[in-house]
Amino acid sequence: MRYYQLGDADESRLAVRTPDGLYDLTAANADVATYRDLVRAAAIADLNADEIASGIVADAPRIDEAAIEGSVRRPLVPSEVWAAGVTYRISEEARREESAMEQIYVDVYEADRPEVFFKATPSRLVGPGEAVGIRRDSDWDVPEPELGVVLHRGEIVGFTIGNDMSSRSIEGRNPLYLPQAKVYDRCCSIGPCVRSAASLEDPQDLEMWMTIERDGDRLFEESTNTGGMVRSLEELVECYVDHNAVPELSVLLTGTSLVPSEGFTLREGDRIDIGIEGIGSITNPVTVV
Amino acid sequence: MRYYQLGDADESRLAVRTPDGLYDLTAANADVATYRDLVRAAAIADLNADEIASGIVADAPRIDEAAIEGSVRRPLVPSEVWAAGVTYRISEEARREESAMEQIYVDVYEADRPEVFFKATPSRLVGPGEAVGIRRDSDWDVPEPELGVVLHRGEIVGFTIGNDMSSRSIEGRNPLYLPQAKVYDRCCSIGPCVRSAASLEDPQDLEMWMTIERDGDRLFEESTNTGGMVRSLEELVECYVDHNAVPELSVLLTGTSLVPSEGFTLREGDRIDIGIEGIGSITNPVTVV
Amino acid sequence: MRYYQLGDADESRLAVRTPDGLYDLTAANADVATYRDLVRAAAIADLNADEIASGIVADAPRIDEAAIEGSVRRPLVPSEVWAAGVTYRISEEARREESAMEQIYVDVYEADRPEVFFKATPSRLVGPGEAVGIRRDSDWDVPEPELGVVLHRGEIVGFTIGNDMSSRSIEGRNPLYLPQAKVYDRCCSIGPCVRSAASLEDPQDLEMWMTIERDGDRLFEESTNTGGMVRSLEELVECYVDHNAVPELSVLLTGTSLVPSEGFTLREGDRIDIGIEGIGSITNPVTVV
Amino acid sequence: MRYYQLGDADESRLAVRTPDGLYDLTAANADVATYRDLVRAAAIADLNADEIASGIVADAPRIDEAAIEGSVRRPLVPSEVWAAGVTYRISEEARREESAMEQIYVDVYEADRPEVFFKATPSRLVGPGEAVGIRRDSDWDVPEPELGVVLHRGEIVGFTIGNDMSSRSIEGRNPLYLPQAKVYDRCCSIGPCVRSAASLEDPQDLEMWMTIERDGDRLFEESTNTGGMVRSLEELVECYVDHNAVPELSVLLTGTSLVPSEGFTLREGDRIDIGIEGIGSITNPVTVV
Repeated sequence: MRYYQLGDADESRLAVRTPDGLYDLTAANADVATYRDLVRAAAIADLNADEIASGIVADAPRIDEAAIEGSVRRPLVPSEVWAAGVTYRISEEARREESAMEQIYVDVYEADRPEVFFKATPSRLVGPGEAVGIRRDSDWDVPEPELGVVLHRGEIVGFTIGNDMSSRSIEGRNPLYLPQAKVYDRCCSIGPCVRSAASLEDPQDLEMWMTIERDGDRLFEESTNTGGMVRSLEELVECYVDHNAVPELSVLLTGTSLVPSEGFTLREGDRIDIGIEGIGSITNPVTVV
Repeated sequence: MRYYQLGDADESRLAVRTPDGLYDLTAANADVATYRDLVRAAAIADLNADEIASGIVADAPRIDEAAIEGSVRRPLVPSEVWAAGVTYRISEEARREESAMEQIYVDVYEADRPEVFFKATPSRLVGPGEAVGIRRDSDWDVPEPELGVVLHRGEIVGFTIGNDMSSRSIEGRNPLYLPQAKVYDRCCSIGPCVRSAASLEDPQDLEMWMTIERDGDRLFEESTNTGGMVRSLEELVECYVDHNAVPELSVLLTGTSLVPSEGFTLREGDRIDIGIEGIGSITNPVTVV
Repeated sequence: MRYYQLGDADESRLAVRTPDGLYDLTAANADVATYRDLVRAAAIADLNADEIASGIVADAPRIDEAAIEGSVRRPLVPSEVWAAGVTYRISEEARREESAMEQIYVDVYEADRPEVFFKATPSRLVGPGEAVGIRRDSDWDVPEPELGVVLHRGEIVGFTIGNDMSSRSIEGRNPLYLPQAKVYDRCCSIGPCVRSAASLEDPQDLEMWMTIERDGDRLFEESTNTGGMVRSLEELVECYVDHNAVPELSVLLTGTSLVPSEGFTLREGDRIDIGIEGIGSITNPVTVV
Repeated sequence: MRYYQLGDADESRLAVRTPDGLYDLTAANADVATYRDLVRAAAIADLNADEIASGIVADAPRIDEAAIEGSVRRPLVPSEVWAAGVTYRISEEARREESAMEQIYVDVYEADRPEVFFKATPSRLVGPGEAVGIRRDSDWDVPEPELGVVLHRGEIVGFTIGNDMSSRSIEGRNPLYLPQAKVYDRCCSIGPCVRSAASLEDPQDLEMWMTIERDGDRLFEESTNTGGMVRSLEELVECYVDHNAVPELSVLLTGTSLVPSEGFTLREGDRIDIGIEGIGSITNPVTVV
């Protein structure tokens, strides 16, 4: 099942998409206003979210697909977002060209320990339709479309799409600048929904695509498959969770392999669309921060 | 099952008493820190609290009974407490003597509409061991031991013991002063636990007793049975819930029939013990407010 | 000065009206998003709210009066609202006719102790433009327009307009039903602003008026003056605050003297307008709850 | 002035140390329960925290120094902690020896752009007396004693002591592992107080010292001066604040120059003491996480 957070002026509600359509869970049960409510109840009742949602759907009114246009928000508000790097086969080569200090990427690629890093606080995280940021002091900026793992107390409960916005010019100058290239205003987006882990057979075999448009022209269009990862999701999660103080809800982005070529940089007003098979797609405009 | 909120300096946890002993639910499942967490999960998962708690108990460490001495707090923090009056057979006569305007009590007793009233905000509500208040501007003050109904969105989910502290002198002067006689600092206590509705066969057939001690002397000792009520619990709940904006969690006290005789008034330092069969007992000292 | 809470879909801000116009305080200082923020800062800094607001206004953008149409909300969210009764000279006679038990009103009128009562939780309190409620189980319902005193930890800091909606039929049947006649869904409204105490010379010499319209017809139109009170505001506040657990912010409504005649009752869809000199006016439609 | 957060079982209060002694601000004014309350009020009233505190001290009870032993907590709960690296003159040489990729540190040292990075969420931040962590998967772990800048919406309002716990073995293996070497359970401590910016003449001329004890033996004892920084505090703050989504309250640690020699690593049970002139000192035991 897929869970969406819908919001307008005065209220917020959780909707679920089943094979039969879209349903308003909050209308059926006022105690379920967010994905967090659902997941927490599941953890307490020792059920999975889909089992609980199935029970509520019976009483839930259908939602008209057209009516939710523009009201889809971040599907959850994780206390923190982490991300991983150098996780795809293709990524090795791409990074080899971009940095004078390329050896460190090769080393990570070959090492037992993955690269994971703190990516975003809730205050830096946007949802569908909201602008993602590029830094005014950067001149080479790219989106990084990634499969996002949704974690409840460190356990995988679902999947979403994430965009790990990055300043290549700042990162490229010195690896010690990586946090500045990664953590800034509007540096991350997630959405449009959480696809439950229980309903997704193999998260490491999903088509993923990205397009970038400027003034109506398509500047970038490519696709890949999450099967291209050289690390398992469990390995990446373990690297984040171990020795850490993991919150009730967090998201771990799992790295990218869709990278615009070296000559490309994002500009104010560009539009980024990212899609993953079985989850959906998310659109974000670009703004300078 | 019976649910207790235990608290000390740095943490709060929910415990459950089963026929086999007392268990720390929060230690077994960090998502269950309060009774509210448990009841909300039950409402979302369409289970009752006991069914969920039974699953958690399997992993829960036992708590030593002696170790919780002094750490039992309010079993829940309801957003509001309401109370009912003139609900017991005996109450009619008792009240007949106490007021020049006795006819209004007789009228309520005979009317279809029960008497229910706003009793306490969370800020005026204390738990086991904490002092209940008597007003400095009152010279006739009594406890009113009552069966408390615990409501989730207006539905009965459990039972507790409540003390509806009352200024007889202020109430007796004019019925329009009733709110002043009833709603003031430390005017209400609840505890020691919530007994689940699912595990209590007949809440209107429970022994209830109260003792009052002063300087080691027992000044009052009497018992009654909740079977003495002339209204059903459902009728009282309906009167509170209908036409109202009921919060997620509230408590409705259901009236008293244990009343000290007319010559008795509480004083600073008195100790009140109230017990109800199947729930337990609660002790509160008295302070002037 | 007068403080307004403005809100639309995504944000809430505090505005102030000075003799020079309306200003957006939150735009000038992100730490002042609500009246509570302002009053708390004043209490900490030992200044009054107007002194602080004057400093912020210098940097604050003006707000177009037309632009705020429909976005004025409750000027504050008090933790509780209390109300007083039988406080006006005229009220004595009016009440004398309405109840078989009229003597209790006369007694309050002549007694030292005022009548004050718990009126509303935040969940039952609406703002400008929102519907106030009449109970489906009542057949005689009236608004009670009142001067509202805004209290910070029991001290008067400002004034607002309040509507103490009342079921005369329930109250009239038995004074013990007063809480049911007074405390129910949508039973109270306040607004449109808080007029600072420092800027209002004499709150007990203000014109107050009310009109009620139905289907375009004016059914009621009368005015009075807060100078008609027979109790001082300080006396009423003291009666509420003493022996009580007063929250950081509360509102005390001070009684009414504008009462529709006995033949009148509110109906679904009626429109109530209440104005007080120096504060402004508030409009609420009526709905059945 | 210096602000301390004191806490025991049931309450939390803000204390201030003036040249005349230690005072309980919360006891004098219930609206000031935390440093955040004070700073927010100052920002709203356009005063500095010391001006406001001076007014409250007049009514505040003195606190016995002995009585607060063990009850000093984190002086504030910043929404996030950032840290800077390679900011001291001595640091260049020290780091030159420790890493095969030393050139990146030299480059930062010589570059216009400082190194700043996300250091800790509130959940990973401890206060005086609480254990700081060393990772079980690391075999070379050190404290980094640093001057901490306290920021209100990106503006410097005070100073504290910070410990930027670091895994040298993880950081040394690859600079892309820096976030794992820096952000983990119990990775940061701050305290014991916030020294107001208004009362500290020159934060870049303060003696700083650190000792490390194991089983009663002093293993490390050295001192330095914050005057050894090669960047101004303003420059570091600007690098953090620019292009970022800065919360109401944050802390920026400003780098270290007190580094145990290469043969030393922390162990479970070690005790770290860090002091800065004009602020005080903080003690933390070490635990494995």
